Amino acid sequence: MTDLPHHGSSDHAAVLGARHNELRARYETFRAKGLRLDITRGKPSSEQLDLSAAMLSLPGRDDYLSADGWDCRNYFGSVQGLPEARALLSGLVGAPPERMIVAGNSSLALMHDAILWALVHGMPGGRPWRDVRFLCPVPGYDRHFAILEGLGIAMVPVPLTGAGPDMDAVERLVADPSVKGMWCVPKYSNPTAETYSAASVERLAKMKAAPDFRIFWDNAYAVHHLTDARPELANLLDACARHGNPDRAFVFASTSKITFGGGGLGMLATSKANLDWYLGHMTRRTIGPDKLNQLRHVRFFRDPDGIARHMEAQRRLLVPRFAAVYERFDALLGGTGTATWNRPDGGYFVNLDVMDGCATRVVALAKDLGIAMVPAGRTFPYGKDPRDRNLRIAPTCLAVEEVRAAAEGVALCVLLAASERIGKVD
Amino acid sequence: MTDLPHHGSSDHAAVLGARHNELRARYETFRAKGLRLDITRGKPSSEQLDLSAAMLSLPGRDDYLSADGWDCRNYFGSVQGLPEARALLSGLVGAPPERMIVAGNSSLALMHDAILWALVHGMPGGRPWRDVRFLCPVPGYDRHFAILEGLGIAMVPVPLTGAGPDMDAVERLVADPSVKGMWCVPKYSNPTAETYSAASVERLAKMKAAPDFRIFWDNAYAVHHLTDARPELANLLDACARHGNPDRAFVFASTSKITFGGGGLGMLATSKANLDWYLGHMTRRTIGPDKLNQLRHVRFFRDPDGIARHMEAQRRLLVPRFAAVYERFDALLGGTGTATWNRPDGGYFVNLDVMDGCATRVVALAKDLGIAMVPAGRTFPYGKDPRDRNLRIAPTCLAVEEVRAAAEGVALCVLLAASERIGKVD
Repeated sequence: MTDLPHHGSSDHAAVLGARHNELRARYETFRAKGLRLDITRGKPSSEQLDLSAAMLSLPGRDDYLSADGWDCRNYFGSVQGLPEARALLSGLVGAPPERMIVAGNSSLALMHDAILWALVHGMPGGRPWRDVRFLCPVPGYDRHFAILEGLGIAMVPVPLTGAGPDMDAVERLVADPSVKGMWCVPKYSNPTAETYSAASVERLAKMKAAPDFRIFWDNAYAVHHLTDARPELANLLDACARHGNPDRAFVFASTSKITFGGGGLGMLATSKANLDWYLGHMTRRTIGPDKLNQLRHVRFFRDPDGIARHMEAQRRLLVPRFAAVYERFDALLGGTGTATWNRPDGGYFVNLDVMDGCATRVVALAKDLGIAMVPAGRTFPYGKDPRDRNLRIAPTCLAVEEVRAAAEGVALCVLLAASERIGKVD
Repeated sequence: MTDLPHHGSSDHAAVLGARHNELRARYETFRAKGLRLDITRGKPSSEQLDLSAAMLSLPGRDDYLSADGWDCRNYFGSVQGLPEARALLSGLVGAPPERMIVAGNSSLALMHDAILWALVHGMPGGRPWRDVRFLCPVPGYDRHFAILEGLGIAMVPVPLTGAGPDMDAVERLVADPSVKGMWCVPKYSNPTAETYSAASVERLAKMKAAPDFRIFWDNAYAVHHLTDARPELANLLDACARHGNPDRAFVFASTSKITFGGGGLGMLATSKANLDWYLGHMTRRTIGPDKLNQLRHVRFFRDPDGIARHMEAQRRLLVPRFAAVYERFDALLGGTGTATWNRPDGGYFVNLDVMDGCATRVVALAKDLGIAMVPAGRTFPYGKDPRDRNLRIAPTCLAVEEVRAAAEGVALCVLLAASERIGKVD
């Protein structure tokens, strides 16, 4: 189950023992620095946030009318959000403005509410969900799993392949009508950074499933490029419509990792039937979203090109941080066989797979170094990584030199954990 | 059932007929003006919103750190909201900052979520609510009723008395353990403007009820004074704790009618057990509220005195609008016996009771005059006013002269509807 062969000879054991002592010494030297580094969550750095500094004094005291002449300081209109905000952001969800909602500061809340309303009311035309299951491509986003766990919805892990989930497994599982939902982060997936292939999207749209089965397509990293690769993500809503399953998908996005963390705009797009269903329940919950924050975003970006330019500037800040991780991992872990990691084309994370059974130990060792990592297992439903090997590195928020130090510390922990493990195997 | 006696003589019929023809002529003259006036919803006027104009460029590009030194532009901390925002607003809910949540732009959403989570999870220590009922003091707030109707929760109307609900009825009804909730707008109630008496609050806190019965105390108009009367509202949370029912109440408030409609801050306060329960579910729904809008409010008001001064300025704008209603109603309806109305000490509405069976007709007649009123019955559960007499006038949003015109138009409709009705009686 490990990436390393077993070693039986006592000579080899002596070599390993020496190696282990050397690693332990380097680890103690690092620990003596007394660093405090947090690589747990995908948070933007101060420099990224500074790029949106002008928003902090927008829209400005005399600027509060929408394009339609409504006073955004007051209650008015639909819960669907400002038309110009929807026009600005429709590219993030791949749907026309009339088929989307721009809401408050949390796209997670939009996902939560859709699932909760399905439990209580049923999806359009369906009965309330009872004893239902969700497919969860793994590794995935812990907050997606937490929503389901909180609501008592059973989670079925499905492995990711590098081009989306194992579609043979998905098609087999989804044939069971108790499977009512599936999480997807289809572009620069959290944490593997893979983008679902056109073939995966096509099969998701086409496969046989319960009429009230829904794909929760969290396109959180739609414009968060790190390289020039820019893989294209096929349009799931269009594919579902083409295959006669128009109501299969809810698409979500957010500007929280474009402008301000928790101060952005959450949004969703879906079919007409789903949209009417969602708006019907949403209208009972709230009079409407904060239109001033929507206007603020419209004034700041002006148009989708404004968002693209902004994300280019963010990319210039992020690339050296990711490079610092690769440099340290290459130098310390390259060729050791103790870990594999990716070089993402986008998103917020480096996905790190260590030797089987070592992830928990790596996190504990890192903690002693003053490096806060997300607990091992968090990228899996119920916090249980069956191989205890997957870790997620969030390098965005620290300064470049801090990222370099954190990556070095993590690499030392990976090596030390592997060394301990091999010692046990011997 | 009407406020007017029956009249049987043919002389009297002739007088009434002449009066009716005169009213009809005045009505047609009014209609010929082709006005378009909306008195449906409790919206602030532009002048009120202008008082908060400085907020539109706050917090300012270099101002984003919380008192604790956190960057409010980023994800951080608890879903409970900025400590300084809670300190600023705790007076609105009558609880210490550590026992409250300052959230997003909608207090209605906080109420909705508490009820929905009780249906799905149960209140702390209780089982999920099934086949439950809510007491609804009437007339009341249509959006409260809409939440319950949407969730299939049965509503039991209870009459208001001028000092809160009929407490004998409440105590009798709440003894049934299927009664799990009760709506209250305890200060300047929407629409009757009454403030619950200390005795009412005491009985609500003390009465016997199911352990998972909750009072939803929507203190929407806590600081919205119109006169110097300023009736004191007793602290329900304290009273519940004193009577051994510490978890009985959720208290809600909002700054949407203090700063910007739909651009303010919603909040709740409750017991420790309820708060932990709420935060537990909220944490799965969202990473946190928009802290920048919280910081914006903190910078704008600075302290509770800032809110009080702000509301004084709003009062100066509102008083002439309410006075215009009283002046026209006094002049046209006074002494006719066709209607009664209040002169609220606070809040956003004039409560108008017309002759039984006439409210629907008044709204229809007003519509023909170009005056948009909330449909009759909306202040009752299921939209059904058993006497078809209650109407809600929202004078805040129009200019004073427009309010005067709208009040005159409504008064004409009240008289005309009464005249039609009396004609039928004869």
